[in-house]
Amino acid sequence: MAEIYFDNSATTKMSQGAKKKMTEVIEEHYGNPSSLHARGVDAEHIKEEARRIILSSLGVKRGVRGELVFTSGGTEANNMAILGTVNAKARKGNEKILVSAGEHSSVEETVAHLEKQGYTVLRVPTKDGKLDIDYIEANCKDAILASFMQVNNETGALYDLKEAFSVIKEISPRCVTHADCVQSYMKVKFTPKNIGAELVSISAHKVNGAKGVGALYINPDVIKTKRLVPIAYGGGQEESFRSGTENVYGIAAFGEAVREHMENMEREIGIMRELRSYIVDGIENSEARVNAPIKSAPHIINITLPGIRSETMLHHLSSKGIYVSSGSACSSHSNKVSSALVSFGLTDSEADSSIRVSLCPENTKEEADIFISALNEGIKALQRK
Amino acid sequence: MAEIYFDNSATTKMSQGAKKKMTEVIEEHYGNPSSLHARGVDAEHIKEEARRIILSSLGVKRGVRGELVFTSGGTEANNMAILGTVNAKARKGNEKILVSAGEHSSVEETVAHLEKQGYTVLRVPTKDGKLDIDYIEANCKDAILASFMQVNNETGALYDLKEAFSVIKEISPRCVTHADCVQSYMKVKFTPKNIGAELVSISAHKVNGAKGVGALYINPDVIKTKRLVPIAYGGGQEESFRSGTENVYGIAAFGEAVREHMENMEREIGIMRELRSYIVDGIENSEARVNAPIKSAPHIINITLPGIRSETMLHHLSSKGIYVSSGSACSSHSNKVSSALVSFGLTDSEADSSIRVSLCPENTKEEADIFISALNEGIKALQRK
Repeated sequence: MAEIYFDNSATTKMSQGAKKKMTEVIEEHYGNPSSLHARGVDAEHIKEEARRIILSSLGVKRGVRGELVFTSGGTEANNMAILGTVNAKARKGNEKILVSAGEHSSVEETVAHLEKQGYTVLRVPTKDGKLDIDYIEANCKDAILASFMQVNNETGALYDLKEAFSVIKEISPRCVTHADCVQSYMKVKFTPKNIGAELVSISAHKVNGAKGVGALYINPDVIKTKRLVPIAYGGGQEESFRSGTENVYGIAAFGEAVREHMENMEREIGIMRELRSYIVDGIENSEARVNAPIKSAPHIINITLPGIRSETMLHHLSSKGIYVSSGSACSSHSNKVSSALVSFGLTDSEADSSIRVSLCPENTKEEADIFISALNEGIKALQRK
Repeated sequence: MAEIYFDNSATTKMSQGAKKKMTEVIEEHYGNPSSLHARGVDAEHIKEEARRIILSSLGVKRGVRGELVFTSGGTEANNMAILGTVNAKARKGNEKILVSAGEHSSVEETVAHLEKQGYTVLRVPTKDGKLDIDYIEANCKDAILASFMQVNNETGALYDLKEAFSVIKEISPRCVTHADCVQSYMKVKFTPKNIGAELVSISAHKVNGAKGVGALYINPDVIKTKRLVPIAYGGGQEESFRSGTENVYGIAAFGEAVREHMENMEREIGIMRELRSYIVDGIENSEARVNAPIKSAPHIINITLPGIRSETMLHHLSSKGIYVSSGSACSSHSNKVSSALVSFGLTDSEADSSIRVSLCPENTKEEADIFISALNEGIKALQRK
């Protein structure tokens, strides 16, 4: 059975180049970067090469020490950004934190934890896939942290972080701005500077790199003013922001995957955007409905089915070798209704009947055709029950 | 130049089997274990297979949910054990924590952080490589946590954790016992149960698995009585103890490396122990001195040089393709004198003139001979300066 992988926002296949790089590093550069002998120095070089590539993808030509910190993934980067900011200064413990209403669980659960401790967490409405700027303007005074995703992982909504962060900085200049760019990285052109984000989280396995690797971009001024502290302690790797022997193979593969994307990004975005339109058109002729945000990332389509639970459709499609997601992969084992979809404007029951298609540049119109007919077939068969 | 890698306590080469497994999983099992479709279920199976192998290596036939939690490495496992225990209950903030005097930085720096916050951290003396049981007995009353390494990563001292933890549990039954087994795992036969450890940290890249992977064993009673909480938040993976998309390839490679070691452990320990004796004998005929603990792991030899700084010798050996360590890799970029060596009984200047040789079963007597003559040559050449 030919497989159609339409779940690239959950995870991607590693690229050929990333795999090759990883294998090469495993074979030839097995040292611990902290070791002082030649094998250690060699591993350190491999790591620094990847750091240079990734910094350059973020528009940074020569990074300062600590400007990019490798983590075990997006979740750790988000935790580090939030907990590391909150713990950096003496706090009363009830300070204000802003997030969007449908953040990924790695942000939402982290601020929910802080909320339980007494912090005031304000969740900015995101109706129709737009950050409510009036709400932000009215509520951001004295906030210590604003953490917004750039692309919503469930709806594909592309938020205008530049606008949001500039409003916040105008009113609360000392508020730390964090962008969770896990879903937008290599799909949307941005730099931390041009969106006004002091901290930026990215993840390797969403961009054809390895699982178990991510990074947090840290603006040099945040380092200088000590507005971020580590959340774990040890050997002092990564300028003490992130202790532990580095996943050198994974980091190298991350660098290689990013290098490949940078070369082809314009073209890849074009392919995905075209395919997305093609699928949206196809869905419009079905009984399902596309939940189209005002501005959208090129690779995500959220679809509400007519009275069929997402999971039921997901299993129908999976049985045909077509892989999509119900909600986001990260929360799909839980049974909560998606806050992202509800905040977008769906009812609970619509949110419970929605699936997500997420594309990569290798997906094709032929795959889209097969998906749409399987979806229509599913709608007929499953509605009858 | 033929290379002699005698720095296996810093990191190991991946085994052929682990590499093969990793490549296979990257190619064929690329899904996100949280995805509900067939690709996700498949990745979940790969992960659970590795978990079963590793649990069985720890003497656990059928683990309960959460009994083994995959992390990004030993450092994260140690942080999780310590911070997760301390944060699990309401605390006054000055409670007592016991560690050994020469813990790995991932334990020492974590408790040092807690010490700054007000906790009382007691460091058990380890003269001649032995945990001071009298000190423990006299000081463990009302301790909330005892965290001891099983094998010291610098001296190779093998501590009697069974004795230490049983004394503690006698006096303070509610004290959580944590063993950092990163250096002992697959080198020393133990199970969490037979050493009396409720939490056990292990790392993959020290046992020929992949970098970026480790695990924390958690006794089911600790889970039941909620004596451990997560230190980061998100999608709720790993029974909510460790959120974030799992490093499925690395986890699978970890499982495979452990499977291989389990089959050959007796033989491998024998080889390393014999090679260790051979090198110790060789050193005894030189001007250097072996710092032999009362009980030692099979693979680590700490050597004090006659008035030559460790780093100088390390570079001399590295130039000949022989890779050893000065102190532990994890702290070797810092310039602190090793607390492990000082606690063992060395003076500051002796500690500053010591190197560590750490073996794997593939090392040979021929390599040992080359090392010893290079060492002797180095001693002559470098002392002259």
